[in-house]
Amino acid sequence: MKRAANRLGRYLPILDWGRRYDRDTLTSDMVAAAIVTIMLIPQSLAYALLAGLPPEMGLYASILPLIAYGIFGTSRALAVGPVAVVSLMTAAAVGNLGLTDTAQIAAAAVVLAFLSGAVLLAMGVFRLGFLANFLSHPVIAGFITASGILIATSQLKHLLGVSASGHTLVGMVESLWEKLPETNYYAVAIGVFTVAFLFWVRKGLKPLLLKTGLRPRAADLLAKTGPIAAIVVTTLAAWAFGLQDKGVRIVGDIPTGLPSPTLPAFDLEMWSQLIGPAILISIIGFVESISVAQTLAAKRRQRIDPDQELVGLGAANVAAAVSGGFPVTGGFSRSVVNFDAGAETPAAGAFTAIGIAIAAFFLTPLLFFLPKATLAGTIIVAVLSLVDFSVLKRTWNFSKADFAAVTATILLTLTLGVEIGVSAGVGISLLLYLYRSSRPHVAEVGLVPGTEHFRNILRHDVVTDPTLLTLRVDENLYFANARFLEDYIQDRVTDGCKIRNVVLMFPAVSLVDTSALESLEAINRRLADMGIKLHLSEVKGPVMDKLLQTEFLDELTGEVFLSQYAAWQALAGHGAGQGPGQGAGGGRDAAVGDGAAANVTPLRRAGA
Amino acid sequence: MKRAANRLGRYLPILDWGRRYDRDTLTSDMVAAAIVTIMLIPQSLAYALLAGLPPEMGLYASILPLIAYGIFGTSRALAVGPVAVVSLMTAAAVGNLGLTDTAQIAAAAVVLAFLSGAVLLAMGVFRLGFLANFLSHPVIAGFITASGILIATSQLKHLLGVSASGHTLVGMVESLWEKLPETNYYAVAIGVFTVAFLFWVRKGLKPLLLKTGLRPRAADLLAKTGPIAAIVVTTLAAWAFGLQDKGVRIVGDIPTGLPSPTLPAFDLEMWSQLIGPAILISIIGFVESISVAQTLAAKRRQRIDPDQELVGLGAANVAAAVSGGFPVTGGFSRSVVNFDAGAETPAAGAFTAIGIAIAAFFLTPLLFFLPKATLAGTIIVAVLSLVDFSVLKRTWNFSKADFAAVTATILLTLTLGVEIGVSAGVGISLLLYLYRSSRPHVAEVGLVPGTEHFRNILRHDVVTDPTLLTLRVDENLYFANARFLEDYIQDRVTDGCKIRNVVLMFPAVSLVDTSALESLEAINRRLADMGIKLHLSEVKGPVMDKLLQTEFLDELTGEVFLSQYAAWQALAGHGAGQGPGQGAGGGRDAAVGDGAAANVTPLRRAGA
Repeated sequence: MKRAANRLGRYLPILDWGRRYDRDTLTSDMVAAAIVTIMLIPQSLAYALLAGLPPEMGLYASILPLIAYGIFGTSRALAVGPVAVVSLMTAAAVGNLGLTDTAQIAAAAVVLAFLSGAVLLAMGVFRLGFLANFLSHPVIAGFITASGILIATSQLKHLLGVSASGHTLVGMVESLWEKLPETNYYAVAIGVFTVAFLFWVRKGLKPLLLKTGLRPRAADLLAKTGPIAAIVVTTLAAWAFGLQDKGVRIVGDIPTGLPSPTLPAFDLEMWSQLIGPAILISIIGFVESISVAQTLAAKRRQRIDPDQELVGLGAANVAAAVSGGFPVTGGFSRSVVNFDAGAETPAAGAFTAIGIAIAAFFLTPLLFFLPKATLAGTIIVAVLSLVDFSVLKRTWNFSKADFAAVTATILLTLTLGVEIGVSAGVGISLLLYLYRSSRPHVAEVGLVPGTEHFRNILRHDVVTDPTLLTLRVDENLYFANARFLEDYIQDRVTDGCKIRNVVLMFPAVSLVDTSALESLEAINRRLADMGIKLHLSEVKGPVMDKLLQTEFLDELTGEVFLSQYAAWQALAGHGAGQGPGQGAGGGRDAAVGDGAAANVTPLRRAGA
Repeated sequence: MKRAANRLGRYLPILDWGRRYDRDTLTSDMVAAAIVTIMLIPQSLAYALLAGLPPEMGLYASILPLIAYGIFGTSRALAVGPVAVVSLMTAAAVGNLGLTDTAQIAAAAVVLAFLSGAVLLAMGVFRLGFLANFLSHPVIAGFITASGILIATSQLKHLLGVSASGHTLVGMVESLWEKLPETNYYAVAIGVFTVAFLFWVRKGLKPLLLKTGLRPRAADLLAKTGPIAAIVVTTLAAWAFGLQDKGVRIVGDIPTGLPSPTLPAFDLEMWSQLIGPAILISIIGFVESISVAQTLAAKRRQRIDPDQELVGLGAANVAAAVSGGFPVTGGFSRSVVNFDAGAETPAAGAFTAIGIAIAAFFLTPLLFFLPKATLAGTIIVAVLSLVDFSVLKRTWNFSKADFAAVTATILLTLTLGVEIGVSAGVGISLLLYLYRSSRPHVAEVGLVPGTEHFRNILRHDVVTDPTLLTLRVDENLYFANARFLEDYIQDRVTDGCKIRNVVLMFPAVSLVDTSALESLEAINRRLADMGIKLHLSEVKGPVMDKLLQTEFLDELTGEVFLSQYAAWQALAGHGAGQGPGQGAGGGRDAAVGDGAAANVTPLRRAGA
């Protein structure tokens, strides 16, 4: 009974924390929810604007999805909802459809949310969360930096009060340049005020609040209400001065209440055009969400189950689609606020949802005069913190391959758009990894004096024997580098004419595939033709298990040694006396299982 | 002067062997050329038929390309010309264009040869020969087997004397089934006779010849003339019995002489449609050619330079295009015959080219009555030797990933065609490799008693210490598995509450990328939060060089040990007395460079 409940609790985390829910937790969650709600109202409107959608869709995307994640998600503090990068990707995906009718654009965003949800759920059910690992950290960092630049640029049109278009940096700048003469200076004033005010809130308000004796945490949280203050001030200004008549674009009529739940319309052509972007949005959203969830969970020693997170985010996106929203994920800044404000369970998300629902019912008429320039200003301030080029310097110093991948990601995201940018980043990092592993590092090693340890002869002061060539292969042996090893050994033994024994040291080989096995067989045959024996040492268990299923070990002219030191004692000049005697029995007998340890010990004692 | 000549000799191998050419070499080469010419005449006609091209194009593809390869290629025995698999790929690529006019089809094949040549030359100049390594041995074996089945099936229409079409197994069988009522029984008789005769030549003639006292090698070579005999007999029969009037398709008029050299026509649409197939044909052709070249070179201790081979094959294909041929590469069976017949230099290829040119001038009128069913029979017998399903059993036993890749290659080649089949094979083998490396093998290790060697606690009888967790990571640390290691260590230390020190043993780690570095930093921080120190041991030189450029070693709570045994002595319970004292100085000082050996020796002496 308890076991079944535990199992169910794994797939429905709400059963786990719901059972222990009490009054203290309720208070903590409600305080956090209140703060996140105040932060989320302007953000949800702004990200809908960024996605090129009606503002109310931002609110819709911030109600049901939070409840769905609360039921299925495993993070206690993740705040789900619209986020900047995913909204930008939504804008690009929907924009590519070439639609002009607002209702059709909204319908496409709903389909995109539904498809993202389906993709995430499928990945969760089939436990494909590891796919996200193929997005390397530098590629993500580069992508987010480039996205931040794109987002900030895309909002300049609202700041200038003009209509411009484009999904790439060049396209947007060109379009803005064309429309520059139409600049509305009232919009510019509002936008510049918002940006300046929000920067001041960030840098100047907190020290001021601290001076008044407020506690640091309260000052931090109060500073998060900056966007609400900007909205109130600029909305009042727009109403009082009739800025609408002076050409300032305002949010206008927002439908009150919530739409009735619907299923997204099925249209094969649209679905097939959106499935690719939906997959990218799912993976990017998942990566962004899981990293913030894991960071916060580690601080409280809680566990995040990546595959269950996929289910939680998938449910959230399906809920977004059903309730007329657009793709959502766990946002970084809101989650941190939620955590800092004391959220203890996903119920905080549900309370936030209630707050947003109240806003959707009662607040929307008040937002009629809200200038779009204000929302654009809040977006710009929010995303500029995403822009961070330090990853370029870091990767340049540490890994040129990572540097190439991150540079390509940034440049391609800016010039060709988000989808090509991130796909190219993944592709390039995979290709560079494969290229590197196809030219493995092979070190010739010798004995470190006074130890049983073997190191690279080029880097360490080691003992070697001219009749014994020991090569440490620093990579898995698989099809991409099988031929490389053949060529390498052929070259090496042609140079060293005294060589009688070649030992391949396998501490770094965890995988030998069929191509590599065939290469090893070829190496063994060719060395035999030259009167040289081939030996292996330090073969790992899983690799040995595989080799035992083949005829290679029967054909091997030499032996398999448990340790390189055992090989050294048997084969090096000074150990020749013991070598041959101990060497009897062929490869198959040595170095496998526990018994092999006994095989080495007498050798060592005799040698020492 | 001599150095410059050597250098030039590298790019023009003819300068190397040409200087030492003498009368004996000339005789050997001419004998081999005569035998290969006799073999190549029917093959060149048959492979042109297989490629869906006029028969004379087979002859044209067997003249200039051989001379071009002789100048630029590095193999002494490779026989270049039309081969079965590349001809099949040519048929598929040209067939996809949907052309009906014979002249247009021929022009497309010429363009394909030119593009293949350009791709090969580019790969050679940019030293991209390693790309061929991504075709794993099992994928090649599967592809060739499936191609053999496709080729044999494609020839059945000629054997039945009907017109059928299709580039997939199902398509071809359906088309054949439809046309079955139109079967021409004279064609069937000729085809069945040819197939039966050639099988008898292979299996029955050689023993007969041996009985007459012929030497085995001579008997072998004589048996290779079987196809010529079949052609002579069936051509005479077709002429004598007027089979042409009875509906038997014959080769018909072949233009006498050689076409004047031309450049392929430029047509952007056709070029863009053919560049993909040209890349595949280049890589497949290169892989087939280089493996036979290397096998033959190893037998005579000669060297093959893969990048120069690309240049040689590229020149051969450009020559094929210029002289009205179609894509060529080094053929397996002809090269073996060339080698066995004693060819010593690429001049043998040039003499073969002269033989084919003579045939093109004087023999073509005699081939007027040659039935296509005869050529189909020679193809079927030749390709059935390519079909070999043993790779399925071999990979099933040794590597399920390879088995999956080879099965997919065979099935997709048969059902969806050669291009999709081989691309999918490469894609699947890469994905499976990446998947495996994203879930690396991590072993907990302990000390093998009486040695300084550490092995998996699950497989060996080893000594461990409850306060010390040593994990050996059996894979490079890169973005695809960085998160895996974080999760693994988190889980492992949560289970073992006595753990005070964690050592990551890095003998298998040859690469740490930026993502993995960030994961190591995260692991270090999280362990520090739990009061556990993180150490590294057996870090390889190249990895250590990289880590020294970062701040990670300064932040590392523990040390870097040269060998795991040194770590054991410093950290394990029984070595605690010496541990802390020796541990001073932090990670950065230990285990780097030659001096590090001295760091270990006293530890060991103190411990022993």
